Amino acid sequence: MYDLIIIGGGPAGITAGIYVARKKLNTLLISRDFIGQVGEAFLIENYPGFEEILGSELMEKFKKHLEKFKIDINEGEEVSKISKTKDGNFEVKTSKGDRFLSKAVIIASGRDPRPLEVPGEKEFLGRGVSYCVVCDGPLFEGKEVVVVGGGNSGLEAALELSKFCPKIHILEVSPQLTSDEITQERVKKIEKIEVLTNAEIKEIKGKNFVNSIVYQDLKTKREKTLKVEGVFVQIGSIPATGFIKGLVDFNKKDEIKIDPKTCETKTPGLFAAGDVTDILVKQIIVATAEGAKAALSAYKYLQKSNNYSK
Amino acid sequence: MYDLIIIGGGPAGITAGIYVARKKLNTLLISRDFIGQVGEAFLIENYPGFEEILGSELMEKFKKHLEKFKIDINEGEEVSKISKTKDGNFEVKTSKGDRFLSKAVIIASGRDPRPLEVPGEKEFLGRGVSYCVVCDGPLFEGKEVVVVGGGNSGLEAALELSKFCPKIHILEVSPQLTSDEITQERVKKIEKIEVLTNAEIKEIKGKNFVNSIVYQDLKTKREKTLKVEGVFVQIGSIPATGFIKGLVDFNKKDEIKIDPKTCETKTPGLFAAGDVTDILVKQIIVATAEGAKAALSAYKYLQKSNNYSK
Repeated sequence: MYDLIIIGGGPAGITAGIYVARKKLNTLLISRDFIGQVGEAFLIENYPGFEEILGSELMEKFKKHLEKFKIDINEGEEVSKISKTKDGNFEVKTSKGDRFLSKAVIIASGRDPRPLEVPGEKEFLGRGVSYCVVCDGPLFEGKEVVVVGGGNSGLEAALELSKFCPKIHILEVSPQLTSDEITQERVKKIEKIEVLTNAEIKEIKGKNFVNSIVYQDLKTKREKTLKVEGVFVQIGSIPATGFIKGLVDFNKKDEIKIDPKTCETKTPGLFAAGDVTDILVKQIIVATAEGAKAALSAYKYLQKSNNYSK
Repeated sequence: MYDLIIIGGGPAGITAGIYVARKKLNTLLISRDFIGQVGEAFLIENYPGFEEILGSELMEKFKKHLEKFKIDINEGEEVSKISKTKDGNFEVKTSKGDRFLSKAVIIASGRDPRPLEVPGEKEFLGRGVSYCVVCDGPLFEGKEVVVVGGGNSGLEAALELSKFCPKIHILEVSPQLTSDEITQERVKKIEKIEVLTNAEIKEIKGKNFVNSIVYQDLKTKREKTLKVEGVFVQIGSIPATGFIKGLVDFNKKDEIKIDPKTCETKTPGLFAAGDVTDILVKQIIVATAEGAKAALSAYKYLQKSNNYSK
C-alpha cells in the first residue's frame, strides 16, 4: 500500500514526485517513458533558468532531479484503469496486469498527439506519416515534406526539418499562422519553407510509402495536390485519459476538470495536474507548477486523514 | 506608451517578461532589484531542472534569461502608485517621480518579510535584528543567535547560521515545527541548533545592540530570557501592495484576488501574478508559472483590444 501513486513522467508528474519525496511520502510513479511531449520538443527557450535547452536535455535533467530522491519508479508500463476500493483507497492497474494500491493518486498523464482523421493517416503511419520530428526527422533526409499545423510546434518542426529536407511546406487551416511572432520571423528567413494558409488537408496518398497529399484551398474551394514523401502532423494534442472513467469530470475538450487552486478532482484523494487537466495555459513551466500544487494538496489530504505511512 | 508594464523582478515578473518578449510586446519591467525572496534563499532543491542551486544563482540565471530578449528594464526604482487614465490606459508612478504609461499592467511585486511587531524590533533593526540570513549571517560569526520561525525558511536560516554561530535557537510558536521533514532531519543532526516549540517572542532587548530576547513558554505561561546577540525573523511574509488601491480586490491576507486560471484582477487590463496574489501555493516554480499565465492573458487582452504597438 503506497501513500501516493503518480501517473505520468512528464513535467507535472516528475515535479509532483520531487515535492512529495521531500515530504517523505511513500510514493510510486508509473510512466510509459520519460520522454513525452517535452522530450519531443526542440529548443526550449521559455523554461526560466535555461536560456536554450533541448526538450530531451530538459527531460533528462528533470528525471535526474527526481532520482536524487527516494521514490519508487515503474517505467515502461501504462496504466489501464484506476478504481476505488471498498475501503476508500485506490487501485491502479497497468496494461501488463500489475496492480498497485494507494491512499491517494495524482493523474499527470499528459497528452497524446491529435490525429488528422483523414484517409491514409493510419495506413501510412510509420511509412511517411509521423507525429514526432525529433524522433523521425532524420529519416526524411533529402525528401520533400509537409508539416500540418501552423502553431508553435508546427513551425518548430519545419525549422528542424529544414536541416534535412530540401523543401518543407507548412499547411495551416486558418488565415494566419498561430505561432509566436519570434518563431514566425525565423521561418520567414528560410526560403525552402513555404507557408500555405487557408489550406485544409483532405487525404494522404501513396503506394508503399506516402507520395502526396490532397488539400483544399479554403479561399478558392479547389483541391490541390502536394507531392511529398513525409507528413508531419502537428495540430495539437488530446488528453491521455483513457484509463480514468467515472471518478472525474471532463470538460468539452475531454480534459479533467480540477479546482485551479488545489488540483482536486471531484473524488477526494484523486488529484490531476498538468496538460491532462482543464488549465488554460499548456506550457512546461505551468505543468511543473501544477505538479507541485497537486503534490502539496495530496500531502495535506493524507495529513488530514492522518492516514499515511509516516 | 508601452503595451505592458511589469512591476517586479522576481520569478513571476521575469517569467512574464520572457513570455511577452517572445510575443514582441513593447514592455517595461520595473523592479527595485533582482534579488527578492529567491535571492535571499539558500540552497533550492525543488526548482525542477536544478538539483541544487543557490537562490542568488537561480536569480542570476533568471535575469540573464530575461536579458536575452528585448524589453526595457528599469532597475532600482520602486512603484509608488498605479492609476487609470481617462482614456483607459494605466499610469505607473515611481518613488523617484518618474511616470510611465501603458495599455496593460502585470503586478508581480511579491512579498516583504512579515515583522514580529514586538518591542525592540524596529529599534534594533540592523543592530542585531535581521530579516535576511544570506545578507547578514556572516556578520554574526562567533555569536549566539535566535531564529524566530520554525517553517522551511526558519530551519534553513538556522542551518546556514550553523556555519558561523556557536549556538542557534529556533523559536516556534506552534507545538511542532512546520517545515519539510527532510529539513527537520538535517536540523536534528546539528547539535548546536536547539529547537524551542510553544515559544512566543515578546520583546527584543539590548543597549546599542541586541543582547537578549524575552519569550513566553506557552505551556507553562512563564516568561523566559535568551541571551542572544542576533535575532533572525523568519515568520513569513506579507504581500507588497502598498502602491495599488481601488483597482483590485484583496483577500483577508491582503493578497490580490485573481482569477486562478487567467491571473485577471477585477480591472480589465490589470493582471497579477505570483506571491502577491491569493494563489495557495507560494513556491518559486508556481510563481514562474503564474508569470507565464499573466503574460499570455495580457497578450490576449491586447490582441482583443487590437491596440498594441505591433
